[in-house]
Amino acid sequence: MSDTRIRVSEIFGPTIQGEGALIGQPTVFVRTGGCDFRCSWCDSMHAVDNDYRDTWTPMTAQAVMEEVAALSGGKPILVTLSGGNPAIQPLAELIRLGQRQGYYFAMETQGSVVKDWFEALDMLVLSPKPPSSGMETNWGLVAECVEAGQGTQTVLKIVVFNEADFAYARDAAARFPQLPVYLQPGNHTPPPPEDDSAVVDQAGLDARMRWLVDRVAEEKWYDVRVLPQLHVSLWGNKRGV
Amino acid sequence: MSDTRIRVSEIFGPTIQGEGALIGQPTVFVRTGGCDFRCSWCDSMHAVDNDYRDTWTPMTAQAVMEEVAALSGGKPILVTLSGGNPAIQPLAELIRLGQRQGYYFAMETQGSVVKDWFEALDMLVLSPKPPSSGMETNWGLVAECVEAGQGTQTVLKIVVFNEADFAYARDAAARFPQLPVYLQPGNHTPPPPEDDSAVVDQAGLDARMRWLVDRVAEEKWYDVRVLPQLHVSLWGNKRGV
Repeated sequence: MSDTRIRVSEIFGPTIQGEGALIGQPTVFVRTGGCDFRCSWCDSMHAVDNDYRDTWTPMTAQAVMEEVAALSGGKPILVTLSGGNPAIQPLAELIRLGQRQGYYFAMETQGSVVKDWFEALDMLVLSPKPPSSGMETNWGLVAECVEAGQGTQTVLKIVVFNEADFAYARDAAARFPQLPVYLQPGNHTPPPPEDDSAVVDQAGLDARMRWLVDRVAEEKWYDVRVLPQLHVSLWGNKRGV
Repeated sequence: MSDTRIRVSEIFGPTIQGEGALIGQPTVFVRTGGCDFRCSWCDSMHAVDNDYRDTWTPMTAQAVMEEVAALSGGKPILVTLSGGNPAIQPLAELIRLGQRQGYYFAMETQGSVVKDWFEALDMLVLSPKPPSSGMETNWGLVAECVEAGQGTQTVLKIVVFNEADFAYARDAAARFPQLPVYLQPGNHTPPPPEDDSAVVDQAGLDARMRWLVDRVAEEKWYDVRVLPQLHVSLWGNKRGV
């Protein structure tokens, strides 16, 4: 046991994973604090912006697992590591400790930071950020993340707001033909960090989802999945679900 | 090539599979006409009720594949066989013919009719009907379907309206511990066959979905997926999407 600390923004659940490859799967989320990116449409600024740093708690792997187990009633469950960018945190010990107790781990990261412990994950979700985010993608680093995750199940998840994002997603899929690709319509009504009751434009989200289905069909892009964010439809922008 | 005929209610797509294990996947639907069940909340009565029999077209496997290929632009895609109950149709030749051209096949059936060609499918979705349907389940036949599908990927999909349905789903999962289980909140506003613009009670569906997530968490049922019907949220009760 070490006293290395993980910077934790929030731990909550069980709820279902609302998006991507494990959509619908019961899970406990461990959201870490801090991020090397500043996406224009970030929906988790409370785990990204340094202004919220005093809400982040340094915790040992053991303390995190104790809280996860308390939430799951002591029964092993999928643990979803999210952020912020969880890849900047020291998570190797948490994964090892949880897996020894029967828990399994999926991590969501943009692919900008590479760690050798990626291979210990049960699923690595790489979500490089498209042009609408305002960020630049270093494809060399994404490739290094894929390499570091050899042996675990790795998938790509791309948020799509517009045609430029769609072209980016096509390019990403072509760069990593071995990886399953999940497309997700972007949420243009992300919550401000201090207001988790912010209104969601569901009609706008549905329209973007339909557009994305149409675009995929037009391009005859048949080996892809198009999925919405269920949690946004079900619980709005509310935190902790 | 034989002149055996498949009774076809409709062929449409590409759209995405809106529910279950392949949710979000681009697919062409082949909906067959005729069913041995009469579920109280059936959402496809136009493919079930004999009153609509004159809208069903007897087609050869080759004719079906020609229409599928025309819709997919000649590019192989997932073909979803649905109904009605597609298991009562002669689909072996269609599957063989399509697979030779690179297409792959998932079939949705209630598990009341067993065919030896189930093993040729790429995915077999068994959706035994819970108490709210008004139907009785013959678990022996469901087990025979699982047996017939040895070698293909087989999953259970259970529609849940209420506590009795939830208990039924728990029982189904216990009977087939080797099968992945997908739960789906029931649609209490199914369209009448003659009106595909029937209004959907989205708030009611969302409430049932949240209830189902809560129930799964309460029971610590963590190796299950809870998924809504995306097509209902996105396109209402409209046909052909």
